[in-house]
Order: sequence, then structure tokens, then C-alpha cells
Amino acid sequence: MTLTSSRVRPVDAPGPRRGLGVGDLTLDGGFWGRLQETNARATFQHCLDWMERLGWLANFDRVAAGTTGPDRPGWQFSDSEVYKLLEALAWEHGRTGDPAVDATFRKVVDRVAAAQDDDGYLNTCFGHPGRPGRYTDLSSGHELYCTGHLLQAAVARVRAVGPDDRLVEVARRAADHVCREFGADGAPGICGHPEIEVGLAELGRALDEPRYTEQARLFVERRGHGTLAPVALLGPAYFQDDVPVRHADVWRGHAVRALYLAAGAVDVAVDTHDDDLRAAVERQWARSVERRTYLTGGMGSRHQDEGFGDDWELPPDRAYCETCAGVASVMVSWRLLLATGEVRYADLVERTLFNVVATSPRADGRAFFYANPLQQREPGADVLPDAVNPRAEGGVRAPWFDVSCCPTNVARTLASWQAYAAFVDDGGGTAGGDAPVVTLAQYAAGDLRAEVAGGVLALRVDTAYPADGAVRVTVVEVPAGPVGLRLRVPHWAAGATLSVPGGGTTTVAPGWAEVPGPLRAGDVVTLDLPVAPRLTWPDPRVDAQRGTVAVERGPLVLALESVDLPDGVALEQVRLDPDVAPRAHDDGALVRARVVPLPEGSDGTPPSATGPAGPATSSDAVDVPLVPYHRWAERGPSTMRVFVPTV
Amino acid sequence: MTLTSSRVRPVDAPGPRRGLGVGDLTLDGGFWGRLQETNARATFQHCLDWMERLGWLANFDRVAAGTTGPDRPGWQFSDSEVYKLLEALAWEHGRTGDPAVDATFRKVVDRVAAAQDDDGYLNTCFGHPGRPGRYTDLSSGHELYCTGHLLQAAVARVRAVGPDDRLVEVARRAADHVCREFGADGAPGICGHPEIEVGLAELGRALDEPRYTEQARLFVERRGHGTLAPVALLGPAYFQDDVPVRHADVWRGHAVRALYLAAGAVDVAVDTHDDDLRAAVERQWARSVERRTYLTGGMGSRHQDEGFGDDWELPPDRAYCETCAGVASVMVSWRLLLATGEVRYADLVERTLFNVVATSPRADGRAFFYANPLQQREPGADVLPDAVNPRAEGGVRAPWFDVSCCPTNVARTLASWQAYAAFVDDGGGTAGGDAPVVTLAQYAAGDLRAEVAGGVLALRVDTAYPADGAVRVTVVEVPAGPVGLRLRVPHWAAGATLSVPGGGTTTVAPGWAEVPGPLRAGDVVTLDLPVAPRLTWPDPRVDAQRGTVAVERGPLVLALESVDLPDGVALEQVRLDPDVAPRAHDDGALVRARVVPLPEGSDGTPPSATGPAGPATSSDAVDVPLVPYHRWAERGPSTMRVFVPTV
Repeated sequence: MTLTSSRVRPVDAPGPRRGLGVGDLTLDGGFWGRLQETNARATFQHCLDWMERLGWLANFDRVAAGTTGPDRPGWQFSDSEVYKLLEALAWEHGRTGDPAVDATFRKVVDRVAAAQDDDGYLNTCFGHPGRPGRYTDLSSGHELYCTGHLLQAAVARVRAVGPDDRLVEVARRAADHVCREFGADGAPGICGHPEIEVGLAELGRALDEPRYTEQARLFVERRGHGTLAPVALLGPAYFQDDVPVRHADVWRGHAVRALYLAAGAVDVAVDTHDDDLRAAVERQWARSVERRTYLTGGMGSRHQDEGFGDDWELPPDRAYCETCAGVASVMVSWRLLLATGEVRYADLVERTLFNVVATSPRADGRAFFYANPLQQREPGADVLPDAVNPRAEGGVRAPWFDVSCCPTNVARTLASWQAYAAFVDDGGGTAGGDAPVVTLAQYAAGDLRAEVAGGVLALRVDTAYPADGAVRVTVVEVPAGPVGLRLRVPHWAAGATLSVPGGGTTTVAPGWAEVPGPLRAGDVVTLDLPVAPRLTWPDPRVDAQRGTVAVERGPLVLALESVDLPDGVALEQVRLDPDVAPRAHDDGALVRARVVPLPEGSDGTPPSATGPAGPATSSDAVDVPLVPYHRWAERGPSTMRVFVPTV
Repeated sequence: MTLTSSRVRPVDAPGPRRGLGVGDLTLDGGFWGRLQETNARATFQHCLDWMERLGWLANFDRVAAGTTGPDRPGWQFSDSEVYKLLEALAWEHGRTGDPAVDATFRKVVDRVAAAQDDDGYLNTCFGHPGRPGRYTDLSSGHELYCTGHLLQAAVARVRAVGPDDRLVEVARRAADHVCREFGADGAPGICGHPEIEVGLAELGRALDEPRYTEQARLFVERRGHGTLAPVALLGPAYFQDDVPVRHADVWRGHAVRALYLAAGAVDVAVDTHDDDLRAAVERQWARSVERRTYLTGGMGSRHQDEGFGDDWELPPDRAYCETCAGVASVMVSWRLLLATGEVRYADLVERTLFNVVATSPRADGRAFFYANPLQQREPGADVLPDAVNPRAEGGVRAPWFDVSCCPTNVARTLASWQAYAAFVDDGGGTAGGDAPVVTLAQYAAGDLRAEVAGGVLALRVDTAYPADGAVRVTVVEVPAGPVGLRLRVPHWAAGATLSVPGGGTTTVAPGWAEVPGPLRAGDVVTLDLPVAPRLTWPDPRVDAQRGTVAVERGPLVLALESVDLPDGVALEQVRLDPDVAPRAHDDGALVRARVVPLPEGSDGTPPSATGPAGPATSSDAVDVPLVPYHRWAERGPSTMRVFVPTV
């Protein structure tokens, strides 16, 4: 059985489950298809233009020309943005075969490759004339972090076009350099920002180089012993150097760092059959998702260190929920889904894709949210289209940031969306029996083709999901032998029904719904997920959301924006009436709300001493529309909240 | 009329109202007397020992010896800690005349003075061999900030012992240097951290040098035009360089900076009769106290920039409420009280003194809180007595910090507490008529002696305030002419009564209660303030406190600590029953609380999606004690909250 095209995917772990290749599912527009098309049509060039304009691409040219100096533009990690864009281009080309995308990719690679030193070292910030020496600042220098993104780009490329490629060669030499410098006989260091681990592990798989996996393992094991020099006033938890991965119970510190590290640790655990390490990440996932994750799937409660907070510390207004942390969370959950087969990981992937990743890009693909708070207290300022913006100011999507990690991270994720949509169990696994089983984990209209033992299972999916909850799956082609099909029933979809050929309609519980076999070409299976708007109450331990309720619709978290309120009503005056069920409205909902008068002005005492709030006394009631959270701030500066007060 | 001893006070503004000198009120122990005694007995030497141990004092010796170099210990602002301690020693000596305190003061001054350059420049971080040049980093260098604290120390000294003093001479030369360098004909710079303004203005008053006031005015007016180079990723609002003081509507950015600047701006406004500038600070105070101030009087909602948040952004767990911001808030409110006579400023001084300033020091005066959050989610870690601690980790008072501004700020404030206790209106002012009026703004047992026209008004105050609300004032001596007496009725003291000789007992409304005259020696006046525990409801716009209530007792904010809960009950299980009035208990209160079961464990969804919280179903009810907030964390690591959920 040849699986070449099926292996064009970010994660190719050993084990019973494997994802589809990015080209194995062709989207017919729809929610993700449109985002993916905008990504290719607008975002790639947008990122290239900014990186050219700011000199981040020219940094490579200067290294090649020997003209480096103290005046290098960009942060120490700006190389990584180039690599993430290369990864996006590689997936796009791998998925579509578009020669223009390939040409763009090659042009950038030529500039990158020219900057590589003879011994494989490749970095434009360190190690050249007028610059600090190599690996002189492991805590903040981000050299290995940049290399990790280089390797991830090469993973995409080797799977799309094979190992005979200039970027793949560059990455191989860079990885070899890292193994020489930091191997068991080399320096015992680690990078302040994890990423090299996940890059090495996957490149090891892609090139069948166990040395790379071993180096990733070394980096994972070295972490947590307090060897990194402190950064500013932050302690070792900031970069997860406080507790070894296998001993930690929860994610803490800088969220993107914690999650990239966790992704790499899963890779290492799977490849080395280290069940203890895998169980550690599963444990961290469970507690962090329960106690340190927002309704949107967003992670990171604090601006101070872009990090996780304490358990239950989930302020909506100061939620950081960095877009990149959403991308990283998808990386971790997808790996755990392949490793365990548990549906909860697919549920979180969906929640995060719809409500963090899809929230970041503006409709035109040329501006992005960096932070994704669940409440905006003051309308966002106007963003100038030519400005490099501060990274975490909420309320308005910005074209580029001083630290601009999010645009390219969105680009590579959207370009490879298909890789997270379905997986195959080749038998003897999840579904019992020896027959292969194909599982749809995410829903989008299109044509899916999964190579399995005995041939191909080809499916046609028709759906307007998430606007509508009906997912109609037509079996187009079946393999010679038996094959199973499973559909995910999301955790929120109580009352979902499954209609099967000749089997009528039955209610299916959240989890994996198995389609009774045998499958035959022409079979039509319909999953009906209830997407009527529903109230979602906060866990009472989330202090910052006490006395509020949110509204969700299918996988979409909804939001109330000030621009949707009647004239003269301020967002802080609105109380949602939970006794009146929200009704569907466009893609969102209409909710019944009361308008309460604002308290009198100050008498010179702090805000908590002016007397009892008491119940709302106004009998005014209005219906106000909610919009999907991912679409907020599309109509000019506004204030916004996801959780609306009920008291 | 000679007012020499009465002028030993931090603020000596022109205008109808003047504070007492620090020696004009002798405390008999009591709440503030005990803190003041511990301050003198333990805190001064504690600070000196740490500054000696860390080399912050020796930095002055090295400048004098010409042995400076790149290896200077301490932050760039460590000189200011020495100056704040000198200020504390000067007040203590000025109040008590203790020769040992004077000797300590002189020893430190000798080391400081030896480091002054010939032209008056004095700084151990800049301007000497192996160090960066003078004023090369106005944004972050803190040179003028340090000088400002030097001048404040000299203000205390010149008022205690007169101008013929070594520190006063040092300060005069330093101030002259600043005027030469940054005067109208000099460099147009400002300091990233305001403080020089308030130092120059008051030294100008103390030495009758209008040039210093003019220089303070220049610094205030220059601010707000975006001339400071950015610090890290923070915008100009961080150091109030976004909007000119006279145009701003609210405090924003770094709280201590905003408040020191406001204090200096009031001084300048009063001295230059700039009503527009004064009105601007009053406006900023009103909005900031209404919308950006905690129940404790604490200011600063964000760790990220140690700054104010948006309006109504007042998270209890991530409240920064830096001790130094409390000190600075008292400085601002006291100045506005003298400038306007409005009682609200005295109310906030009391709230902040009891619930921020008094919260910081441990009972032994040798450890301090830096941040003062209103909720502690995880028990504080143990603090090692010999460790330099990170500055803002909550839950445990620490002996010293890497940035250790708070201990010396507490020391100088406690040493001069009397200066904020009462003020004199010399006639034609507040109370109408031409007779002088003495107003008690804060209450503590002791003997007060106010020089007024025609002699002295001497009062004996007997009270156990704040443990008890009865304040008994005996008139001991009256001046030859008429004199008025007023007592503050705090804003929370609805139902207070005043008993006067022959006048029976009448209810007095919050505000200034005037004692009917004429006053005679031997008269006894009793103010009864109701200090039964009371519920305080949050303003409904403070989202982070929705569905909770706090309990206060007199001026004290109370707190619920986990160590006071029954075995097996977690703090997050407790719901306060607001229908049962809190009862008095020790210095705090007993409240009726229900204990609710904790939700089930995670099903792999974020915390806000596990279902409705609903009302508490448990019928368990227990009485739990609350302690004064300023005494929390005295019994080992615990979790804590000021606002307790009711739903």
C-alpha cells in the first residue's frame, strides 16, 4: 500500500491512527474553504510584503553578503516568521500543486539557503560580524526556536515534494548542526522558547533520522531543571524550566512556549514508547483545559508574561488568548487525538479553530488579532494600514505587529486545515476488529478520499456547517475489504441524530458515532447536530464570570457587540434574561435583554462602596442580536462581551 | 505667631489650610502608634542592613573613592531607597528628637554627601567611570527620580533642624544642578518616573526658592507630549507622556508614576495659582477613584505595567495595588484636601492608610507586601528570611525585594503619620468667620497641640479606634481668641452621633461635624461612629466582582482567609448569606455562610462549558470569621478573598 500523497501532513506519528494528507480532502468553499482561499490569495503576499519592507528577508541577504552589523532590523526571532510562511507555502503547494506558490517558495528559499554557514548554522541575528556570538543567549536568543520552525517548514516540503529539495537540504544540515552542538556529547543547553523539539521530532520522522528524535528527547528531558538564566523579573516557570515535563501537572508560564513544548513531548513520547511522558501531557491537558482555558478554547490569562494564570483565573477583559497559543493548542490536541483516540481532543480542536484561529484574520486576510479577549471595555483605536502595531491591544485587527508571530502562524494553519479534519485507524484499534476505520473529526463540505487497506474510501460531504447542523455524507467509493466510518458528535450536541440507509434515525450521544456497516457506494448518512443557540453557564469557580451567561451556537461562541445595541444603551447596562431562550438569528442569536440604568456618579468613594447593586429595576426589555465571536470587530470600533451579566 | 515646630510636615502649601507638624500630636500606642513604634524600632535598621548587605549604600562610597565600574549592584534607582530611608529618619527625629536616630541619619548622609560631584550632580548609577553618562537614558534611568527623593528627604530635614545641615546643603546643590541642566535655557527633558516635581516644589517652599517651584512647573508642563523614548513594548501612557496633565481626565499607566506626578502637579498649581491645573487633578482623582480604585483604596489593576486598567477593570486576584501607590495616593489626597477642604479626600486617605499602607508591613516590621491583591487563589509560598524576593508575588510578606521601593516608602509614611491627622484653617476659610478652626481628619488616641492665633488649642483624644467607634475629645487648653473644632464623620458612618457639653447628643451626617462653640478647657466632646460590620456591595460595573459582597467594619475592609474555614471546606465552596447580618467578632466579623459542593471534574471542555452553576443546593450553613484585611496572611500561607460570592 502506497500512502505517499496521504503523508502530506504535519504529523506522521507511529501508531494505529494517522491523519489525512492535506490533499485528501477538497473543500467546496464553506467556512474553512473561504478562509483557506483568502489565505492563499491575500495573506501570503501580505506577509511577504511586510517582511520585505521591514528588512526581515533582507537579513538573510546581509548574512550571505557578509554585511551584517549592529543595525539589524527586527526582533531576534524574526527569521522564524520567514520559516512559518515557507511552511504555509509548502502546505499550500502540497495541497494544490499550484506552480506559482511553488515559485514563491523557491525564491524565498534561495535567500534563506544563501545565509547558511558551512557548518549548517543558520541565523541572521547571531553568529556573524557585528552580531552577538552563537548561542550566547539561550534564554532569550530564540536561535533554536528559529531552527525549529525551519525544520517544520522542511517537514511540509519533504512530504510534498520529497527529500530532493533545497530547503530540505538546508534543514537537514541545520538539524545535524544542532545535534552536534547540543547532543549527548555537546553543550547541555536548551532554548528559552521551545519549538526545536517538535521540529526535530517530525523531521526525524520525515527523513527517517532517529538522531533527530533523540535530540528532541534530550531537549525535553533537560527542561525543568532551572538551567536557563532568568529573563527580566520572570521566574523559571515562564519558560517551563521549573518542573520537568514528566513531573508537571498543569501548563504554566508563557502559553505558546508551554504548548509547543507539550506538542514536542507527545512526539517524543510516542516515538520512544514513553507512556509516562505521554500520560504527563494528558494530565496537563486535562487540568489546563478544565481550569485554565477560556470558552473560546483560548489559553493565556495574563498579559504580563503572555502566560497561563492560576487555576480558575480567567478574566475576560484581560484574557490574552494569543492567536499563536490557539495554533499551538491545536497542535497538542491533534497529537493527543492520534495517540489516544479520545474524542475530547477533537472537541477542543474544533472549539479552538472556530473561536481563536478563525477570529484572528480580518475578512480580507490582511489584518489580524494577536490577543483574543472575551470582553472589550473600550472601543479599539483605529489602526493605520501602514503601521507596525503593538501586539496585544485589543479591539482592532492590525496589519502587522512589532512581534508578528500570529499572521504567519494563522497562514500555516489555514493552509493545512485538512490535516486536522479526519483520521484513519488502520485496524485492530479504536473501533474493534481488524477493518480500517475512517473518522470524520471536523465538518466541511467537500470530497474526501482516504487510502485504506484494499483501496480507497471516498466520501462526499454536503453541509453548511456551522451555520447549519446537518452533515450529509455520501459514500462514493469503498475499498475491496471492509471499512468502518465514524462521525464525531461534539460534546455540546446533546440530542444529535444519525440517519443511516435502511436504519432509520437514532439519537447519538456525544462522542464517536459509528455508522453501521457494511458501507456501500451510494450510501447516504446524515448527522443532525442541534445548533440552536444555547446558554452556557460558567463554572462557579471562574470568579471573573460569576453572574453571567454566554450563548453558543453549534461550535461557535457568540458575542454581544455595542454596535448592535439600541441607541442610547451602553453595553454595561445590558442584562441577559436567561428565562427567555435565545432564538436563532443570522449566524448568531437573538437574546432577550433588560436595560438597567447606570448607577449615579461618584461620591468620592471607590467603586465598590456605593451601595448594593440590587436587581435590575427597569422593565425595558429588548431583543439584541449576538454575532459569532470570530466575526466581532468587523464593523468599526466597538465594545464587546461574550459572557453577559444576568444579575 | 511662630509656627516653627508646626512646620515639621511634608506639605507646607500656601493657602488657608495647613497640616499639623509631626510633633504636634503624641500618640498613646493604639493602631498607628504601635505601627510607628515598630517602624522606628525595627524597620529602619532592617532597611539599612539590607541596603548595606546588597551594596546599595556602598555604591555611594565607590563614587567617592572613584572605584565605580560596570559591576555596580542594584537597580538604577537604588539610590532612592537610601533617600527614602533618610526621609523616614528625618521625620522620626523631627517628631521625637531621638539623638540615636539623628546619629544614624548623619552617618548615612556623610556617605551620600561624599558622592556628590562638584557641580551638584549626585547619582551612583550614571556619570562616573565605567558607568553610562549623565542623563543618557531619561526614560528608564531614574536619575531625576532619585534626585526628587533626595529633595524630599531634605524637606523633612530642613523643617526639623533648619537649613544649616549637610543633607540640606547636598539637596540644594543637587536642585541647583537640575535647574541649570533642565531649566528654561537647558535641556528640555523630563524623567520617565515622576518624583522630581514634588521634590522640587516642596524644597522650593522649604528653602523659599521660587526657582525650584518654577523648575517643577516646567517638568509638569513638558510632560504629555510624547518626548520620552518608549520602554519595552509600553506606550507613552505608561509614564503619563501621552496627554498633558492639564488635559487628562483620568489616571493611567504606571500607578506610582501617575500619582507622584499628580502630587507634584497639585503643588505647582497651588503655588502658581493655576486653577485649571488644579481642577485637572481633581477631575482625574474623581474619575479614577470612582472607576479605577479598589475597595481598599488600592490603585493599579495590572501587573503588566504596574498600572491602572480601563474604567471598571478591577480584578481582585490580579490587583496590583502596589504599596507605593497607596503611599502616593495619600500624598495626592492630602494635597487636595489642603487645597480644597473637601472631606472626600480625607476619607480616601483613611481608607488607604488602613487597608494598603498598614497591610504591607509584617507585625515585626521586617517583612512587607509589595502587591496587595484582594484575592489570593493559591497559598503563598514560604519566604526565606535571607532571600531577595520577586516583587509582586502575593500571599506572603517578604523581607526585601529585587525592586525594593515599598519598605522605605512605608517607613517614611509611618514616621510622618501625624502630618495627615489634622489640619488648621487659620480663619476666613472653611468654617466661615475669621476664627481659626482645627479639624481632626483621622482618629487616634493621644495629645494634640495646635498653634493658632491667640495661643494653642490643646486636645486630648481617647479612643480605641478603629476597634471601637467612640472618639472622646477633651479640650485641654484654648487660645485667647475664639477657635473652632471640627471632626470628620467618614462617608461610611451613617447614623454617627455627636455629644457635646450641655448640648446632648445629635446625629451628624457624613462630612465635617462642627462642634458648637465657644470651646472651653475641660469640655468633652464624644463622636460615636457606628463600626458594626456592614455589607458593601460592588458597583455593578465592576464585572470582576459581580455576584459578591464584601464586609467592612468602620474604616477596615475585612477578608475571609482559608485558615478560618472549617476542616474540609475550600474557600471556593463558600457563599456568604447576605440575609443574615454580619456580627462583630474580635476586630473583624462573623458572617453566615453556606458551603456548596464543588463541581464534578473535567469532561475535557473548558471551564465555562460544563453546565449551569445554579443556586447553591447545600443546606449546610456555618459561621465563619473575617479578619481585617491588613492582618491577612499572618498565620501562614492561605487563600483569601475580600469579596465573597453570594451566588
